[in-house]
Amino acid sequence: MDKKENNIMEKIVSLCKRRGFIFQGSEIYGGLAGTFDYGPYGVTLKRNIENAWRDIFINSREDIYEINADILMNGKAWEASGHVAGFSDPLSECSKCKKRFRTDHLENIEICPACGGKLGESRNFNMMFKTQAGAVEDSSSTVYLRPETAGGIFVNFKNIMDSIHPKLPFGIAQIGKAFRNEITPRDFIFRLREMEQMEIEYFINAKDWEEKFVELQKEFKKFMLNIGLDENKIHEVEISAADRAHYSKKTIDFEYDFPIGQKELAGLAYRGDFDLKSHQEYSKVNLEYLDDESKEKFLAHAIEPSIGLERTVLAVLSTAYTEEDISEAKDGSDMRTVLKFKNNIAPVKICVSPLLKNKEILVNKAKEAYKNLKKEFTKLNLGVIVYDDGGNIGKRYRKQDEIGTPYCVVIDFETVESDGCISVRDRDTMKQVRVKLEEVNSYFVNKFSN
Amino acid sequence: MDKKENNIMEKIVSLCKRRGFIFQGSEIYGGLAGTFDYGPYGVTLKRNIENAWRDIFINSREDIYEINADILMNGKAWEASGHVAGFSDPLSECSKCKKRFRTDHLENIEICPACGGKLGESRNFNMMFKTQAGAVEDSSSTVYLRPETAGGIFVNFKNIMDSIHPKLPFGIAQIGKAFRNEITPRDFIFRLREMEQMEIEYFINAKDWEEKFVELQKEFKKFMLNIGLDENKIHEVEISAADRAHYSKKTIDFEYDFPIGQKELAGLAYRGDFDLKSHQEYSKVNLEYLDDESKEKFLAHAIEPSIGLERTVLAVLSTAYTEEDISEAKDGSDMRTVLKFKNNIAPVKICVSPLLKNKEILVNKAKEAYKNLKKEFTKLNLGVIVYDDGGNIGKRYRKQDEIGTPYCVVIDFETVESDGCISVRDRDTMKQVRVKLEEVNSYFVNKFSN
Repeated sequence: MDKKENNIMEKIVSLCKRRGFIFQGSEIYGGLAGTFDYGPYGVTLKRNIENAWRDIFINSREDIYEINADILMNGKAWEASGHVAGFSDPLSECSKCKKRFRTDHLENIEICPACGGKLGESRNFNMMFKTQAGAVEDSSSTVYLRPETAGGIFVNFKNIMDSIHPKLPFGIAQIGKAFRNEITPRDFIFRLREMEQMEIEYFINAKDWEEKFVELQKEFKKFMLNIGLDENKIHEVEISAADRAHYSKKTIDFEYDFPIGQKELAGLAYRGDFDLKSHQEYSKVNLEYLDDESKEKFLAHAIEPSIGLERTVLAVLSTAYTEEDISEAKDGSDMRTVLKFKNNIAPVKICVSPLLKNKEILVNKAKEAYKNLKKEFTKLNLGVIVYDDGGNIGKRYRKQDEIGTPYCVVIDFETVESDGCISVRDRDTMKQVRVKLEEVNSYFVNKFSN
Repeated sequence: MDKKENNIMEKIVSLCKRRGFIFQGSEIYGGLAGTFDYGPYGVTLKRNIENAWRDIFINSREDIYEINADILMNGKAWEASGHVAGFSDPLSECSKCKKRFRTDHLENIEICPACGGKLGESRNFNMMFKTQAGAVEDSSSTVYLRPETAGGIFVNFKNIMDSIHPKLPFGIAQIGKAFRNEITPRDFIFRLREMEQMEIEYFINAKDWEEKFVELQKEFKKFMLNIGLDENKIHEVEISAADRAHYSKKTIDFEYDFPIGQKELAGLAYRGDFDLKSHQEYSKVNLEYLDDESKEKFLAHAIEPSIGLERTVLAVLSTAYTEEDISEAKDGSDMRTVLKFKNNIAPVKICVSPLLKNKEILVNKAKEAYKNLKKEFTKLNLGVIVYDDGGNIGKRYRKQDEIGTPYCVVIDFETVESDGCISVRDRDTMKQVRVKLEEVNSYFVNKFSN
């Protein structure tokens, strides 16, 4: 990445830490590579994105069911999926310093980039984290931390059929953690060892695949726009037959312009009956679907929309991240940093404060307005309202800009002495309007309702 | 447990599988001990419980912040917490069959209960799951799956202080997965290897501990009643000085009458400054709190309310589980099974259906009513509405009773021909009332709003 882009990534990392979005994992112990912890604003941001995904793929449809499978799964499931045999990176070990490197990332495959020693032959290194379940350490007790959530979906296909009895086409969705022992986790929350995925297996009759593929592709794009991604930065890249998995008839990668360049954000793959067939073979359990009308029995085919939650968070953060020259002279002497989140995604919706924190009359009025607004927003589930009387009003605006709060409400002397209105400051335009106190609730409910 | 209780547990397990609440983990591969997967109704039930917990401890307060730390943590954090040295069970291995047993669960500690062989000496077996991060397998890359979520809270204490700048007292909350390599996971979702916890560390000035302990104890009880637990089944047991951890001045266990007997559901412990002190020593990072007014620097003390999500699910399910004789003769010839969930916890709120599914006029009206109600409930975030026209009306009622749906709405011939009302059937009383079609939405919004 070039210097400017690098710079923006560093600024986002710094803002995330400073404002309580995202911290390095195990930070006081020097960190743990590839792990990150979410602070209060990060938790809410992530949850808002999850809910936007649920709105599109689950709540506004009738045919997709959400499950929640465990991270620890019977190892046979990963034999069936091909991960035990094939989910690996090529590594070369230095004969001198014993460090290991991704062979496909080396400029020179003979000489160690760390110490100049001779590199050994490239070997495949499985990226699944392994652990032992139970007290006896033999191979039968080896379990893996799942490398993707999709496995939990296929393994529960029969459970959903037997309990919910859905008819094709229908989908099974899952949001959950996945783990990959990346040799070189990097780029903040882009390449992690512990991540969260939002995956769906949409099961169909093979003959419908093209129609359903197009439908899901549109829905996926709609989700991305709905959380505030920039349409111009989304690249729908069809993967060529040579590059996609052998069982896939069509795969589209959604790439996005991140600060680190154009990279994969999400994928949409038509996987045929590869997965159910394989699980049926390994488990010896019949996974066929019985068509009520035609009385045919067959294996359903699957289309898989898959997206990484942390990558989505990074896409949302980097799209929202803005530096603006707000000096009158436009000479850069007064810059502000703003996270221009869409209203539905912003972790804090409104900040209420008194103009001065040592004037009881303003403080009382502000606390009352805050309480009423919070009550209304909680009741309608519209999001988080905060109260803030720290520092002066200018500092509060800058802080809320960095958190990405769309509106700041201020109770000032006019509120209590003359017009009975509060001041509403818009994050993006920085313009202020005055709204009657008794109309504040409906004013904002309106702005934040769908 | 006695036979009757065993029987009820089995019935709950069976209902959970049959109706899509909870399945055995990796079931088609013969399962994986101590893991369970949640189906659509289980996911929603679990989420409703989480949200009830957030309502009490986060949304309706101003002083508790939610975080989301990674499961994989730097091993030093678990040295500091004492888990590496002391989080273990005593095990004895049979010299003949090599099986291992919990020494404290054995009736005879000399003879193997499986094969009669001679048991070896008891040794401590650490219950943390271990794995390797990175490509080199040496001790520096050993990481643990966290055995509790509290560790992630203490390790982020400084991050929260530095970003949010809260004043004492304040709390940090986390909902997330934890893992324990139990030798004998058992009793359905009661003793698991992979579980979810809801934990809070409430940080205080030591002098306030008694007042805050009482406050949190009340809040905890309020949460339990709010999700429909039976007050008579909750036992608040104070742990004696001899039995509680050496650093704790007071610990209360919330035990509950489960079908398997009176068992621990939750705990409330005053932990003093044990954790922050220990993490400060191990990390060499100053974790002291600076009191703005007194200018004193000191380590905050912590009170920890901790509850297992799956145990809570089991408590809710077993409390809701009811078998009723609904025959006129009360001779047991007609029994029904009902999950009497509270409205806020029920995974499905209302089921809408036409009396007959082959009468277009009824179907159209039912679909319209369903669509309107769903739209309103989605907008107000009041929960899930389903449409069901399978089987006859009697079967649908029995099905919705087992799912625990509080109301069934039926569109019948009177609806379209005479009174313009729909029939609303109450799950618990089984009584029906008629409600005007145009008043259906407000009728139910009223019932499900707080």
